[in-house]
Order: sequence, then C-alpha cells, then structure tokens
Amino acid sequence: MSKNPNFYPVILAGGRGTRFWPLSRKKRAKQLLALDGKQTMIQQTVARLLPLAPSKKFWVITNDDLRPAIVKQLPKLPKPQLLAEPVGRNTAPAIGLAAFLLLRKDPDAVIGLFPSDHVIADEKRYRETLERGIEIAATGANIVVLGIRPTRAETGYGYIEVGGLYEGEALRVRRFTEKPNDDTAAEFVAAGNYFWNSGMFLWSARTLADALREHLPKTALILEEIASKFGTARFAATLRKLYPKCENISVDYALLEPRSAKGEQDSNIFCLPADFGWNDLGSWTALHEHHTAKSTPPEGNLFDAAGTFVLNARGNYVHAPGKFVAAVGVSDVVVVETSDALLITTRQHAQDVGKVVKFLDERKLHKLT
Amino acid sequence: MSKNPNFYPVILAGGRGTRFWPLSRKKRAKQLLALDGKQTMIQQTVARLLPLAPSKKFWVITNDDLRPAIVKQLPKLPKPQLLAEPVGRNTAPAIGLAAFLLLRKDPDAVIGLFPSDHVIADEKRYRETLERGIEIAATGANIVVLGIRPTRAETGYGYIEVGGLYEGEALRVRRFTEKPNDDTAAEFVAAGNYFWNSGMFLWSARTLADALREHLPKTALILEEIASKFGTARFAATLRKLYPKCENISVDYALLEPRSAKGEQDSNIFCLPADFGWNDLGSWTALHEHHTAKSTPPEGNLFDAAGTFVLNARGNYVHAPGKFVAAVGVSDVVVVETSDALLITTRQHAQDVGKVVKFLDERKLHKLT
Repeated sequence: MSKNPNFYPVILAGGRGTRFWPLSRKKRAKQLLALDGKQTMIQQTVARLLPLAPSKKFWVITNDDLRPAIVKQLPKLPKPQLLAEPVGRNTAPAIGLAAFLLLRKDPDAVIGLFPSDHVIADEKRYRETLERGIEIAATGANIVVLGIRPTRAETGYGYIEVGGLYEGEALRVRRFTEKPNDDTAAEFVAAGNYFWNSGMFLWSARTLADALREHLPKTALILEEIASKFGTARFAATLRKLYPKCENISVDYALLEPRSAKGEQDSNIFCLPADFGWNDLGSWTALHEHHTAKSTPPEGNLFDAAGTFVLNARGNYVHAPGKFVAAVGVSDVVVVETSDALLITTRQHAQDVGKVVKFLDERKLHKLT
Repeated sequence: MSKNPNFYPVILAGGRGTRFWPLSRKKRAKQLLALDGKQTMIQQTVARLLPLAPSKKFWVITNDDLRPAIVKQLPKLPKPQLLAEPVGRNTAPAIGLAAFLLLRKDPDAVIGLFPSDHVIADEKRYRETLERGIEIAATGANIVVLGIRPTRAETGYGYIEVGGLYEGEALRVRRFTEKPNDDTAAEFVAAGNYFWNSGMFLWSARTLADALREHLPKTALILEEIASKFGTARFAATLRKLYPKCENISVDYALLEPRSAKGEQDSNIFCLPADFGWNDLGSWTALHEHHTAKSTPPEGNLFDAAGTFVLNARGNYVHAPGKFVAAVGVSDVVVVETSDALLITTRQHAQDVGKVVKFLDERKLHKLT
C-alpha cells in the first residue's frame, strides 16, 4: 500500500455517546469503551488507519473531560496533537482548527476526518476506499465524503443526494440534507440515489481553510490566531480564551450545504460509497444487532456475565460482568448494570437512553453522568 | 384479650422460598427477608402472635441452614425450642414432633401451626379468628383450619371444600383437595363453598398425637422416642439419628384427608374463614401486587433504589438498593439484583424463578443458592 505522505488523520472524539449510559460517562465516553472486542472504539479507529499514516501524523480533537483517558489509551500519539476544546462548538470550528494547524505544518496536507466511535467490518476495503478518497481530495479544491448505502429508512442520520458518476466509484454530490422525518427517509431510500452521511471526509487543509474563510470568516480568523500559537507556551491559554468565540455550527451546515448549492458540476464534492461494513453502534440495540450478527448466540440472547440461565427468553442484551444472570420468560430487553446504576429498557426503546443523561444533567447528578 | 394459657404457636420455617431468588438463599430463605416492612417475615409472624402467647411458648421448626439466622432474628425465643430438622420430611413429621414435645410439657396444649412467610393486613381480626379457633380446638378432638376465600382460580394452593355451618363463623370441612388444574380451580371458585388452605391449623397436642398414632404409627413411635429425650444431652443426637427414618409426607395427605373421609359430621374438622387480608407473597409478582395495593406508586412502578428515572414505563418491580435505576420504555418486568446475581423476568413469569434455583442446584453452583 503506497502511503500518501501528506495524509493526516484527524479524529473527532468530543462526543459523550449518552445512549450508552450507564456504561458511558462524561469521562468515559462511548469512544473510550471496548464495545466491540478488546480495544476501545478510538483505539480501533487509530489501529485501522495506521497502515495509511504513522502515529505522529494523527490528531485528535476532544474535550477536557476525555483528554486524560485518551492520552492513556493512545500513548503512541504525540501528546500536543491530542487537543481539548475548552467548550464544544460543534464540528466546523474543530475541523477548522485542524485545517489551520496542518496548513502551517504542510501546505499540501490532506485531512481525513474520522468519528472515533464507529466499527468497520472490512478494514482492507476501508483503507482502499480512503486511498481513493485521498487521491481525489489531493487534487484541486475537491471534497470527498464517504456515504453509506441506506439499509432502512433511518431518521437519525443526515443524507447525501448524489447525481452523476464522477470517476471510478466516485459520485457527484448534489445535496446534503438534515436528518429527515419518517416519510422523507422512506422516499430517500426508495429513490436509490441517497447515502447516509458517515461523517468521514477527505479534503486538503487548503480547501478547508479557504472554505472557512469564505463561509465563516470571523471563526476562520480566530482559528488562524489560535493555530499561530501552536508549539509555543501561549497556545493553551490562547485556545482557552479564543476558541469559545467561534461560531457554534456543524461543518455540514456551515460549509457543505453552501458549497453544494453551487450545483452538482461546480461544487466539487464527491461521494465514495463505503461498502466496507460500517456500523456507528448508535445505541445498545445497534450493539446487540452488531454482535448477534457476528456471533449468532442462541435465541439472540447476548450476556456479558459470569454465568447464565435462560428459560423461555429471546433477544435480550444484558451487561452484568461478574454476575450470574438469569433471564426467565423475558424477551427483547436491555439491562445494563454498573457499580452505581442499573438501566432497564427494551431493544425498541434503547434510543431514548440519552434522555436519562439529560435528566441527570438537569438534576446535577454529576456522579452518575 | 384473654389469653388461653395452653396455647403454643409452632412456626414452620424450613422452606427455601426459591421463587425469591436471587434474594432468597439456602441460608437466607424467604422467611428471613424483610420483604414487607422493616421486620423479616418470621419476625412479623412472631410479633403478630405475641399478644396471644409469651415468647417462651413459641416453637420453631426449621433446618440446619437457617437455624443460625433464626436464632439471631428471634433472640427472645427459647433457643432449645428452635429446632432444626436434620433432613426435610415434609409437614407431618415436623408437626408431629411438636405435638409429642408439647404433650409431655402440657397435656392440654393447643397447638397453632403457622407458616413463617405470610403477611396479614388486619392483625386484630387475625388474632380474633385465632382465639375463636383455639376455643374450638381446645374442645374434644376438633381440628381447625383457617381458610382463605379464593379471589382467583389459583392452581398453586390446596382447596378446602366446606359443608354446613358449625357454630359462629366456623364451617364443617367436607374435603381437602390437592392443588387443582385450571378447570377444576375455576369450578371450585364458581361453586362458592371452597377455600384456599392457608396452612394455618389449630388442634390440641393430644388430638394430633392420636391422629399420628392412628395414621402414621411408625413415624409416631419415632417421634415419641425423640421427644422423650428433649431437655437431655442426648436429644440432638437422637433427633439427628431417628428423624430421617420418619415418613416423608404432608400433614394434609397423612392426617387431614383420611380424617375428612369420615364424613362432614364425624370428622370434627372445621374451617374458619380468614377474612384478615392474607397474602402468602408466593412470588416477586405477588410481592409487587401487595406493595402497589398498599402504596399505589405512580404507574405501578416499584423500585428499591437510590434514585430513579422513569420514561414510558409501567408496572415494573426493581430491587437494586443503592443504585440509580432508569426504566425506559419497559413494562411489567421484574429485575432483582444482588452482589453476585441478576434476575430478569416478567410479572407474568416470576412464578418460574424457582427453576433457576433447580438449575443452580443441579450444577452444584452452591455459592449462588
């Protein structure tokens, strides 16, 4: 595999993943959990990219709560490149900061933007797709987004409408859309030319910096100012002081939607179908489905337990490591236990688990969040 | 309240109550748990009888596993009267032993036989009923059973068929029946002259001893031999050696059914309707119903927890003391957690929880039983 020497993976790891409460906590978010295998989600994210870039080229953008754990989990990554946002400002400022930092380091830098909490089944295919994307992104002012072929009318993702073929597998992007309602999602899936937005992007630092200067000029100035201090004693203080002044906006809304409005032929945004077994493990239910598809346990029951007894029970997910678990006449429930909390829900309702954290936040029950 | 000086409560406390696993264990059976209030079930049993008899008149029949805990829970009861069967031999030998022991102590002894794990709502009415029963039992060779008016076609209890009125509220018993099937139970309830067998009996030691000598002569001889050693250094060894030779049989089957076969007029068995709010708390479901009837918690959710969040959840029972419990979109489940085990079942299936213990026994997973 011929590495592109200008490729820099930037991993976004500031999310809380509240739908994995009570296992996920403010200081131990979803990306820091080993939900799939022995490595944590962020460790897996780095490991599968290492064949494309050495450790020293990785950047991580996270927050103060999570940075200590990330430093521990990724000891080979350069510590100064594990950045903590002093406050969350959505994806545009986070990515923009990476762009200005890398532009100073390498004018030909190609940034790969990666969520830190997804699983990929076929890593070889994944890297092949990325290499193709890096190639396109390294040319002119191209932007590449990895699109997932929708398998259901999911309302939890943004969609990408594609138009004509560009070259190879790459398709021209016609439009980015917000999370749709049920009917619209069904139309998108039926139409056949819609993909889920994976949150994985490839673009040169220059393209990104230019787009920021055009669409978020005030934020771009702030980020350039912060980036100029990188490597100096004043960087941390500057970041802490100026970053909160950035606009709170997503990259999709700030840059991609305006750019795609230029029209399919002129926007230079391309979609690469991500046919490598992607799963964002969005909830306990998604995790259950992911594991049962891999290991097909009897009756679809998945138990993390010291021992089990199952009687007339199907499709349950139970996390109670070290305990003997008995499931009697109960189906499709999700039970997750930690030393201080117990979640009881169903596979159907597990997407509402984030509301528990919202409640705990409101009540200032910080020990539990 | 005028106490009958010859009344001796005998409490049967040898059961395991496996349907309350994982809370109930071999050494901490249901009767030793505080399922309803601060006192344990057996402490409540004693407390509600104390107005009828002083501590020194109580006897308890249990087993070696449970005796140490019972000694601790009932420190005012005379230790020698807390007897442990070396092996379980069902109710006839246990009660028989009490009869021969008490007959030696007090030829006019009236024995009240009480399960140790039931709850009673109206204790005043309960004691009034018992006083009436003691009066009847003190006369001739009468046997009194407390009958519960059936509220559903329950197949888990034995039934008592009654005939004509005897005197006051007392009815003549026509027949004792085994646990019926669904159809038969429905017929019994519809018929109107059937009661549930509460397991609470009143009879003189003499009547009981005579009945044993008549119907279980071999066992009666063994029990008399054991009883003759009470108060001597040889009692414990004799009990351990001879008790296992007793027949393994219930008092209903050994004594009451043959006696009732003599016919309603000649059997001298009487039923007192137990209209004092009886509940045997036969399962987690029964416990849930008992508590929700008393305290009517919102949406029928009953949580033993340090804190709760409930969203679109109804009719759940969760025992997880010290933990924050979140129930999201889940209804009618029962979740019980201990330091080493986690039970997940439904209100509908909680009667099958005993099967977990059967499984654990078979696998010799003694730490969990």
